[in-house]
Amino acid sequence: MKLYSYWRSTTSYRVRIALNLKGLSYETSPVNLVTGEQRAPDYAALNPGKGVPTLVLEDGTVLTQSLAIIEYLDATVPEPPLLPTEPLMRAHVQAAVQTIALDVHPVNNLKVLTYLKAQMGLTADGQLDWFHHWMTEGFAAYQALLPKGTAFSFGETPDLADICLVAQLYNAHRWGVDMSPFPRLLEIEERALSLAAFNDARPENQPDAA
Amino acid sequence: MKLYSYWRSTTSYRVRIALNLKGLSYETSPVNLVTGEQRAPDYAALNPGKGVPTLVLEDGTVLTQSLAIIEYLDATVPEPPLLPTEPLMRAHVQAAVQTIALDVHPVNNLKVLTYLKAQMGLTADGQLDWFHHWMTEGFAAYQALLPKGTAFSFGETPDLADICLVAQLYNAHRWGVDMSPFPRLLEIEERALSLAAFNDARPENQPDAA
Repeated sequence: MKLYSYWRSTTSYRVRIALNLKGLSYETSPVNLVTGEQRAPDYAALNPGKGVPTLVLEDGTVLTQSLAIIEYLDATVPEPPLLPTEPLMRAHVQAAVQTIALDVHPVNNLKVLTYLKAQMGLTADGQLDWFHHWMTEGFAAYQALLPKGTAFSFGETPDLADICLVAQLYNAHRWGVDMSPFPRLLEIEERALSLAAFNDARPENQPDAA
Repeated sequence: MKLYSYWRSTTSYRVRIALNLKGLSYETSPVNLVTGEQRAPDYAALNPGKGVPTLVLEDGTVLTQSLAIIEYLDATVPEPPLLPTEPLMRAHVQAAVQTIALDVHPVNNLKVLTYLKAQMGLTADGQLDWFHHWMTEGFAAYQALLPKGTAFSFGETPDLADICLVAQLYNAHRWGVDMSPFPRLLEIEERALSLAAFNDARPENQPDAA
C-alpha cells in the first residue's frame, strides 16, 4: 500500500497509527502541504479534496478521508479492533472521535489558517488564540464524554478515539495549549506513545520530517 | 425519542432526515443557538460539546454528534440502509460524507462565525466570501467523488452522503453560493426534496422555525 501523507498533518498521523496497530506495512509518499504539492493536478486527480492522507491499496483502489480509511482498515483487518461493533458502544466512541475530528481539527487545518492569514490578516497572536480556543473547548467536551477508570479513552486497548486524540495533542503541544485542565488526556497520550504503533507514527519519525 | 435540535442547524437537519427515512417518530425539543441555549448548564450536561443535535432514546440513553447518531440508527434499524455494509463501498460513501461533514460544515458553523465576528472583526462581505470559498471547494470535491449516472449520490436510493449534501445545500442557497458548476448536486437535491422524509425535515417545516 502507498500512503500519501505529510509528516505534520494530524489526519496523516491518524492513518499511520491505524496501519501500525493493524500490522500493515506501507510505503510513504510525502506530499508537502507547505509548498502546495496537494494542489498539483496529478495529486488532485487522486484526491479531489486536495488534502492528505490518500491511501492507495495494492490493487490500485484509492481511498481518501482519514476516518473513512481507518474504518475500512478496521472492517477488513478486524484485529485489533479500532471501533466497537456493538452499535451503542460504537456510537459513544464515534461521538468522541467526532468531537476531535469535526469540532476541533477542521477549524485548525492549515488551509483554514492560510485563508485567515491571507484574507483576514490573522496575526501570530491571533493564530494562537484561535488554536487555543478550539482545542480547549474540544478537549473539555472530549474529556466529559469518557467513562471513568479506563486505561485508554474507552477501554484497556487503544481505539479510534485514542488515535484522533493523540494526533490532535501533537498540535496542542506544538502550539502551547495549556493542558493542565486535562490530566486524563495526558495520561492516555503517555500510555499510547509508549506503544511502538503510536511512537513509530509520530510526525518527527517520518521520512519527510524537516 | 426526543431530538434536541435547532431548525437552521444543518447537523440537526441531517438527523431529522435519517429519523424520517427510518420511519421513527420523535419529539422535537428546540435549542435556540442564537440566544445561546446550548450553553445552559442543564443542556451542556447532556451534550458536553454544547451543540446540537442530541438524541435521547426511549430508555434515556443520550447520543451526540449527528454522524454517530445516524450510524447508530442505521445499525439498529437496518431498513432502508443509509450506508453500505460492504467495506469498500462504505469507504467511498463515507469519504463523500466527510467531505461535507469535516471539510465544509465545521468552518461555516455558527460558533466559528461568532468567533470570527467578535474576535477578528469579520464583516458581512467577509462572511459571504468565507462561506462561498469553503462550500465551493467542498462541493467541487464532493461532485468529483461521485460515480456517474446514479439517481442519488451513490445509488438509486438516498444514503448518508445525500443527507449531508441536502442539509449543506440549504446553507448554500441561504448564502447565495453560485451552484452553476454543480448541476448534478442540484438534481440530487431536487429528487431528495421530493421525498416526504426530506421535505418534512426541512428547516422551515420545524416547530421552532422563525
